[in-house]
Amino acid sequence: MIDSERLLGRIRALGRIGRTPEGALMRLALTDSDREGRDAVVAWMKEAGMIVEVDAIGNIFGTWGGDAGDAPVMIGSHLDTVVDAGIYDGAYGVLAGLEVVETLRDAGATPVRPITVAAFTNEEGVRYTPDMMGSLVHAGGLALEEALATVGTDGSTLGDELRRIGYAGPLEPGTIRPYAFIELHIEQGPILAGDGIPIGAVERLQGISWQRVTIRGEANHAGTTPMRLRRDAGYAAARIVTFLHDLAHASNGSTVATVGSMAFEPNAINIIPAEATLTVDLRDADEVRLRSAEAALADFMARIADELGVGIEVERLARFSPVEFDERIVARIEEAAAELGVRARRMTSGAGHDAQMIARIAPTAMIFVPSEGGISHSPREHTSPEDLVTGANVLLGVVRRLAFDGLGGSGGGRRGSG
Amino acid sequence: MIDSERLLGRIRALGRIGRTPEGALMRLALTDSDREGRDAVVAWMKEAGMIVEVDAIGNIFGTWGGDAGDAPVMIGSHLDTVVDAGIYDGAYGVLAGLEVVETLRDAGATPVRPITVAAFTNEEGVRYTPDMMGSLVHAGGLALEEALATVGTDGSTLGDELRRIGYAGPLEPGTIRPYAFIELHIEQGPILAGDGIPIGAVERLQGISWQRVTIRGEANHAGTTPMRLRRDAGYAAARIVTFLHDLAHASNGSTVATVGSMAFEPNAINIIPAEATLTVDLRDADEVRLRSAEAALADFMARIADELGVGIEVERLARFSPVEFDERIVARIEEAAAELGVRARRMTSGAGHDAQMIARIAPTAMIFVPSEGGISHSPREHTSPEDLVTGANVLLGVVRRLAFDGLGGSGGGRRGSG
Repeated sequence: MIDSERLLGRIRALGRIGRTPEGALMRLALTDSDREGRDAVVAWMKEAGMIVEVDAIGNIFGTWGGDAGDAPVMIGSHLDTVVDAGIYDGAYGVLAGLEVVETLRDAGATPVRPITVAAFTNEEGVRYTPDMMGSLVHAGGLALEEALATVGTDGSTLGDELRRIGYAGPLEPGTIRPYAFIELHIEQGPILAGDGIPIGAVERLQGISWQRVTIRGEANHAGTTPMRLRRDAGYAAARIVTFLHDLAHASNGSTVATVGSMAFEPNAINIIPAEATLTVDLRDADEVRLRSAEAALADFMARIADELGVGIEVERLARFSPVEFDERIVARIEEAAAELGVRARRMTSGAGHDAQMIARIAPTAMIFVPSEGGISHSPREHTSPEDLVTGANVLLGVVRRLAFDGLGGSGGGRRGSG
Repeated sequence: MIDSERLLGRIRALGRIGRTPEGALMRLALTDSDREGRDAVVAWMKEAGMIVEVDAIGNIFGTWGGDAGDAPVMIGSHLDTVVDAGIYDGAYGVLAGLEVVETLRDAGATPVRPITVAAFTNEEGVRYTPDMMGSLVHAGGLALEEALATVGTDGSTLGDELRRIGYAGPLEPGTIRPYAFIELHIEQGPILAGDGIPIGAVERLQGISWQRVTIRGEANHAGTTPMRLRRDAGYAAARIVTFLHDLAHASNGSTVATVGSMAFEPNAINIIPAEATLTVDLRDADEVRLRSAEAALADFMARIADELGVGIEVERLARFSPVEFDERIVARIEEAAAELGVRARRMTSGAGHDAQMIARIAPTAMIFVPSEGGISHSPREHTSPEDLVTGANVLLGVVRRLAFDGLGGSGGGRRGSG
């Protein structure tokens, strides 16, 4: 069993790093606050006897045990935060990995495979786009040069900031190809907390489709223009919102749809909207269903454009296919939970995570712990100490299985075999 | 028949007064541009042999003919404009009134009743609220002191500006109580232009109900929050928009409903809206139907607040009951059009006008001429010269009937009898 006080103390300690004068937590990627957080974690890794390596995109890898040439069991998440963040998102997964290594070391265990704890650069994507950048570069999905040239919201260049804070490392991205990858994370959703179940065995991650929709109608006098002569962009926007809501509801929980952003022009009480702009966030764990939702939306928009005499333009903002995690690791999560006598449920991740990128190159799964009220990206983000400890103990059980017994399938290989 | 060239020339001349360096028309109430426009009209009134009086709120009255003690037939509208305006809104009605007087005078006519041409202060309400202020004060609906104390969008005080431009007159507001009142105006809507009918005999003016609706739900992650657990303020807003649209459509043209303004908070692509604010513009020519539309909306909002788990707050922004114009004058408009061999249709005004205020104290009606494309409050506002001349000739016919023959009913009285 892990050392609860050591884990919880480190989560609190890291949560004190990167506070604004007003007390808000803000460790945006590659700022001085991020450096402070990284420095603390690197120091803890070294105290634990881990070999620390940093790659050219700033990903930190702390490795312990096994045969140094073997592909490691990797535990990873991120240390950067959003603006006015909670203390668990990302940090919990990295610190629980560190805690697992220390627990095994303190117990005198000698794993067959090395165990690597990874902290990936810029998962949140607040300062630099795209999010999950470090893990994406590690998995070969984004060229290093392109990532380093990214210009941030503050005008800074990522590569310059990486050098400035001393985390432009010598390791070539992708060198450490994991034997298996596991990410422990707060759910950031209400399901586990709502059901009173402490462990989520995450078997897949939803696909995401983001679109911006611009509707062009005709501005006219609200009092003198008969209903039948209107080309009301705002009404067309409302029809899209209710269509998406109905479509998601009819999917019995597989599709979720959100219109989070909306603007009318000229936005005056007595003028029929000439223009409405809205965003669409569509997610589904199944690629076929996600495509069918996208197609249904496109059909509906074509139909109302015609019916209402408005023009509708669509811009695709982002598109990720769903990710299926590794069944063998998901089964290990269930076994580890059962061993501890705690309930686990299989589930789908609604949010994006580093694990979805690493799944491109290694057998991967995730463990979720409950988020009270489903809240995250907020100082109100909270997971009880009991649940945090349970999650770390399940992680310990899974890592023990993977690093001592293996996946039980045909996995394997050497580090850097990719 | 009126002198087309004189009328059209004056419309063009007045339309050149108050141009910005970029060429946009902007005679906001009580600015130097408004003074220039007023000065031009007062000079034309005096050239036409009219007695010009100005009251304490700056309303201008030019009177000709009849017995000076008798209540006059009043023709009125306004000279102020919106920002980047067209040249017809308001100005047309005042200049056509002047043209009618000159035509009668040139013909050697001697009306039984005096004819007064009125230009009311601050109809547009752009610089000072409320709109239709001069006619409202004239009708006794707003105290003079209150009107003079109004602070404008530019921080100026209305009374100071009125004195500064020399139009704080000695006449007590309401002194000149009309025997009958008639306003000639562009439709500012698409009906006459769409039907190819040159004259609208306006028999009523719609009631207006303005509300601001604030919906409070709960912000949550767009990917991890199941549809059934959402309290989506944006979806509730969309439901209100479609409800209002359906309600107006079901009224067969009597109710019009517009949601012109909309805002989401936090307005992010991947966050369920915590708050949505929208405005409702409801209009109907019938007070019972307007109230019933308001009640249906209130019922619907209570129902979806419950169904969707959101809070809904309503703030009333403005409320005017519908105005029924005087049937005798409306009939005179139809007769005058028939006499000229032009088609007229009875109609409802969707917009507010000075006539709706004067209707509180005197038998009143309005004449509309077509607005191309229904456009107004824009430099693209346009009415053909033929239609402008036809409208003025119909006004001449109506004034001739009223000033020579009377309303044919029990109207009458002396000036200042109120």
